[in-house]
Amino acid sequence: MTPVDLAVAGGGLIGLSVAWRAAQRGLSVTVVDDAPGSGASRAAAGMLAPVSEAGYGEEALLRLCLASLERYPAFLDELADATGVRVPLRTAGTLVVGFDDDDMRVLADLQRFHVELGLEVHRLLGREVRRREPALSPRVRGALHVAGDLSVDPRELHPVLLAAAEGAGVRLVRSRVAGLLTEDGRACGLALDGGGEVRASTVVLALGPRSGGLAGTPPIPVRPVKGQILRLRGAAGLLEGTVRALVRGRSVYLVPQGDDGLVVGATVEERGFDATVTAGGVHDLLHDAIELVPGVTELELAETLTRWRPGTPDNAPVLGASGMPGLVLATGHHRNGVLLTPLTGELVAELVVSGEPPALAAPFALDRFGRGPT
Amino acid sequence: MTPVDLAVAGGGLIGLSVAWRAAQRGLSVTVVDDAPGSGASRAAAGMLAPVSEAGYGEEALLRLCLASLERYPAFLDELADATGVRVPLRTAGTLVVGFDDDDMRVLADLQRFHVELGLEVHRLLGREVRRREPALSPRVRGALHVAGDLSVDPRELHPVLLAAAEGAGVRLVRSRVAGLLTEDGRACGLALDGGGEVRASTVVLALGPRSGGLAGTPPIPVRPVKGQILRLRGAAGLLEGTVRALVRGRSVYLVPQGDDGLVVGATVEERGFDATVTAGGVHDLLHDAIELVPGVTELELAETLTRWRPGTPDNAPVLGASGMPGLVLATGHHRNGVLLTPLTGELVAELVVSGEPPALAAPFALDRFGRGPT
Repeated sequence: MTPVDLAVAGGGLIGLSVAWRAAQRGLSVTVVDDAPGSGASRAAAGMLAPVSEAGYGEEALLRLCLASLERYPAFLDELADATGVRVPLRTAGTLVVGFDDDDMRVLADLQRFHVELGLEVHRLLGREVRRREPALSPRVRGALHVAGDLSVDPRELHPVLLAAAEGAGVRLVRSRVAGLLTEDGRACGLALDGGGEVRASTVVLALGPRSGGLAGTPPIPVRPVKGQILRLRGAAGLLEGTVRALVRGRSVYLVPQGDDGLVVGATVEERGFDATVTAGGVHDLLHDAIELVPGVTELELAETLTRWRPGTPDNAPVLGASGMPGLVLATGHHRNGVLLTPLTGELVAELVVSGEPPALAAPFALDRFGRGPT
Repeated sequence: MTPVDLAVAGGGLIGLSVAWRAAQRGLSVTVVDDAPGSGASRAAAGMLAPVSEAGYGEEALLRLCLASLERYPAFLDELADATGVRVPLRTAGTLVVGFDDDDMRVLADLQRFHVELGLEVHRLLGREVRRREPALSPRVRGALHVAGDLSVDPRELHPVLLAAAEGAGVRLVRSRVAGLLTEDGRACGLALDGGGEVRASTVVLALGPRSGGLAGTPPIPVRPVKGQILRLRGAAGLLEGTVRALVRGRSVYLVPQGDDGLVVGATVEERGFDATVTAGGVHDLLHDAIELVPGVTELELAETLTRWRPGTPDNAPVLGASGMPGLVLATGHHRNGVLLTPLTGELVAELVVSGEPPALAAPFALDRFGRGPT
């Protein structure tokens, strides 16, 4: 087979976004994935909520997330132009709610953080909260409304992004990536399960949680972080936008989706690739969701599932050089994969085409972990 | 088509048991069911626990249940002889546990009731309870051990009973029963979905929760009582036998099944044929199960499902004459369908063959509701 300019390992949102942008810039691109869209994209709730998601001390990550959030409307416009399919973007913002004095102090801190960042945020007291989201528990004392947050259904986004990529000339090979091909210490393609291979001038590694364990790559500190998540049905009109809270120290979020869907997420578990949906995981999610929105009791429990976030030691992605010539990284997006999809595609395609790491990507190079080129 | 001696509407456990016994007594029998075994038999936990299940004032029902329990071992022996497949019978008994003083008083009453009935029952205090079932919550104060209770997996029992019935000459027609055929006020067969029919000298109605709504029958006060139930996996060695309790007024039971299964049941809901598995139903079952046996947290939530019990105004079955010549009832078993399977088959087959209602069935005739022959 003739070598291509770029082989992308992984056809999730990140891999497809990179492939699409690279193809638009004239590269020949092949994506390898045995079941594209069946990974984290299948489970993610699709919150595009950088500030309520980011922790303190993660400001470079926050800037990256905000830059990607800003791109989302145009990204979906462009996908709609390319494919004729418009992926709906929910724009009601996020309500971060509090139950008690401790929660209210956390909200006050979060508000200060927003204000420092120049973001639009409103503090609402009990009655105002319930006016905005009447389904919330009467026990909710107050909330922050983050008006700029968005949400999207990753299950709707993935096939549209795949269609756009294919429309731009990207070829999808439905095989499992078995390993990296190298020649004289340089990445030169992907080995496929069953014996085939894809030869390429550059390889982008976008295997999400599997990125840390691929044969032939340098060490990449990405690990699976298990998440259990629920999809409910019958929620038409129940919530306007995303609602999140701490319930007894556990973070829970409720994200309305489609006509009558509601996603409730998510556990955070260090259990490797354990795929079990557990009684305890489902119990805790349902418990916290019902505590937040009692009407959840009546909804249909339509789906329970487990997937893995690609976690890194500092919760930020690994973008750019791998220390091995020819191998570029687009992985480790942890909780921010859907949000970072538009920007990651741009940045990584730019790096592949120009050879220069864009400034926004610089803080996210692999060598920040002290494992760069030796 | 030549008329048969007996047409049975419904190929659940009850219908098959009647059909098998009738065929053994020389009748030609046809069972009509579009999806045999997909009803309550699919969901039931298979507790064979008459005393902890019966309420006060239901002593005739209790006697019926005890008589059926007594038959279970021989029933399974006979099935094993007939089919070569032995359905396992779990014999560790039931532990009815209590958390607080109120519960302990209820247990003391239950124990007196057992003793009056001459049943073997032991009262266990906290330490003894945990010696028997170490997985129980340390909050459990005490328990009754009902040594004579059994359990069986209805999903294992159903295909074996079907094989035995077919082996005895019963014919299964895989169609949905559309209505009762009558002639001059006498039942003479079943109309099938799609236009076919089965003509018969006698018809037994064993449609479980659908028994109350079949076209052509006299009024039968059977209604669907919705139950949601969970199947967990990974429970090998967790519990020895059935455990049940009241948790904040809600009854919950855990029944070990197979190598590593655990059934957690069940909600009791008056919602007609609503098939929704709800967030609230699953939450409550998981909550109560975890409160009782904290280790449940780690188990896999393998299946959530909804079925309907055939409920009657007094929670007891409707056995025997229907008020319409040629139509015999074997329905309304409510929570006791699996338990009453052996005895119902015997009694109803006896009635069909001899025309005489057996004494044990007499208290369960339809006319106790004042809706008998007019």
